[in-house]
Amino acid sequence: MSASAQGSNVVPLHGAKPSLAPLMNLVAGGLLAVNRVILERMQSPVALIPELAGHLIAGGGKRLRPMLTLGSAAALDYAGDRHYRLAAAVEFIHTATLLHDDVVDGSDLRRGRATANTIWGNPASVLVGDFLFSRAFELMVEDGSIKVLKVLSRASAVIAEGEVAQLTAQRQVETTEERYLAIIGAKTAALFAAACQIAAVVAERSQGIEDALEAYGRNLGIAFQLVDDAIDYVSDADTMGKDAGDDFRDGKVTLPVILAYARGDASARRFWKRAMEGAATGPDALAEAVARLRETGAIADTLARARVYGSRALDALNLLPATAARAALAETVAFAIERAY
Amino acid sequence: MSASAQGSNVVPLHGAKPSLAPLMNLVAGGLLAVNRVILERMQSPVALIPELAGHLIAGGGKRLRPMLTLGSAAALDYAGDRHYRLAAAVEFIHTATLLHDDVVDGSDLRRGRATANTIWGNPASVLVGDFLFSRAFELMVEDGSIKVLKVLSRASAVIAEGEVAQLTAQRQVETTEERYLAIIGAKTAALFAAACQIAAVVAERSQGIEDALEAYGRNLGIAFQLVDDAIDYVSDADTMGKDAGDDFRDGKVTLPVILAYARGDASARRFWKRAMEGAATGPDALAEAVARLRETGAIADTLARARVYGSRALDALNLLPATAARAALAETVAFAIERAY
Repeated sequence: MSASAQGSNVVPLHGAKPSLAPLMNLVAGGLLAVNRVILERMQSPVALIPELAGHLIAGGGKRLRPMLTLGSAAALDYAGDRHYRLAAAVEFIHTATLLHDDVVDGSDLRRGRATANTIWGNPASVLVGDFLFSRAFELMVEDGSIKVLKVLSRASAVIAEGEVAQLTAQRQVETTEERYLAIIGAKTAALFAAACQIAAVVAERSQGIEDALEAYGRNLGIAFQLVDDAIDYVSDADTMGKDAGDDFRDGKVTLPVILAYARGDASARRFWKRAMEGAATGPDALAEAVARLRETGAIADTLARARVYGSRALDALNLLPATAARAALAETVAFAIERAY
Repeated sequence: MSASAQGSNVVPLHGAKPSLAPLMNLVAGGLLAVNRVILERMQSPVALIPELAGHLIAGGGKRLRPMLTLGSAAALDYAGDRHYRLAAAVEFIHTATLLHDDVVDGSDLRRGRATANTIWGNPASVLVGDFLFSRAFELMVEDGSIKVLKVLSRASAVIAEGEVAQLTAQRQVETTEERYLAIIGAKTAALFAAACQIAAVVAERSQGIEDALEAYGRNLGIAFQLVDDAIDYVSDADTMGKDAGDDFRDGKVTLPVILAYARGDASARRFWKRAMEGAATGPDALAEAVARLRETGAIADTLARARVYGSRALDALNLLPATAARAALAETVAFAIERAY
């Protein structure tokens, strides 16, 4: 671990390694209810729909976003059941996004399994994604809150905007850190933020509480994404369900690359340009990339950035009453960051 | 014209050929307001979004669905302005569907121009479609009617379901007429129906009026699609913006093919099977297909079916007050059917 990654101490320290266990234990009962809604509402007389959707939905996802809705509701002591349906809607939006992402990226592996587009083809993935997205809106409409609809329709538009922005930035190594943060703020963090915020809406809490949960989710989402970006250069398929170097081979200009490029000399910049343009993506090039990332401190500083966002998430959380549920949400931040170490 | 197509007399007869002109004149002012919403709300700081969306939205579409919302509102003497935003939402849903359809079909021509996926690639078309779809929901949420949201989110899910069902039926010449009607009822007629129905919702008319406009739109949508199916075998790029035989070359099993197959002998069935599987799609095969469609009466009977749906649309319309607006909606039915002759 590098010095700059060790220096900060913003996440709570436990004897044990932080994990998702507290959040999972907190929401276990609720998650069963959410899963019932998911399984019931992904059905269709058109057999291909549940078949394809089930592959991804049953395929080892953590259900992190629905868990955040449930955990946020628990932290507000919400006693109703509206959040089950809404958490399912959030998971449907997420699943629709993944289906379309895999088509856009031409990916063949997700969570260690063949992607839906590999098995059923791009057309089916596009259309079933559309179906899940529409179904998500049907679930929200059944709930009937215009405010929830506003939060989630806005998030959906922001996500799509972020995806198009990322497509535009693809393979462009001169992307700035600011632009990259705007992209992941849109394509990843917007749904984390909405997932948390809607709990405050259904629990009818103050604007301040709503904003706090929104900020918690948004900063957690950015932290998660930045750590994912770092892990992509230092992990293996066994621990992450994807091989190290996926982003590298796809020419995805993530924060580690942006930092290494900004800090590199002319020869380093030539290397990154060629790599991101797809001209050098083999195992040797990946090894060189990892070495360059380490020697410029790009991995460590990406993680340092993630810790700052994690810290913001925790500060936002402090506006909520001190409960076991809040502690579980806090440990989720620690988990997001510490899994890289 | 064949005997069976001449036999029925369900559409109003004019001296002149029926046209869209009465509807266009009726809604001209409103359509300017709708176009302003469309242009304003397809904007984004991500330049590719308005660029790509504008190509399709400005690209010669008739705005038929928004015109139906406006025309239906006029037939109910609605004096507000909520329908402008909602008509724009309907057009966004339609445009998103077209973008994804062209990706799914691998089409390179739409309305006589290069498709967006040809110019900007499939990934951009998928993601900008997602953006427009999300933006449509934002517009509906701004309107704030849960009932409108219910109608349009249901329609969106039904459309996606219909698209997947059509994908499943692709190139399968043994599709039944019933199954085909269910598919076009979902993928085409559902949005026509919703576009008309929401006018009754914003005008706060009775359930009976709402149902009448829903039935008008649905039956008009089916009639339009069936006539399109027939025209695909008898038209040219000048009149329709697409070449005759597009469906044939794509192996789309439309009603004319279903009827010709059902009525054909063993040799005819071998021909259609080979053609729909893509084994015979050249000009000679197309000429043979057209000859077979004519000699079995498949084209004429597809048009006869369209006239029945047109008749149902007109009957539904009779539940509305007799106004010039209602007459314009009636002539739209006549136009939908007569353009094949």
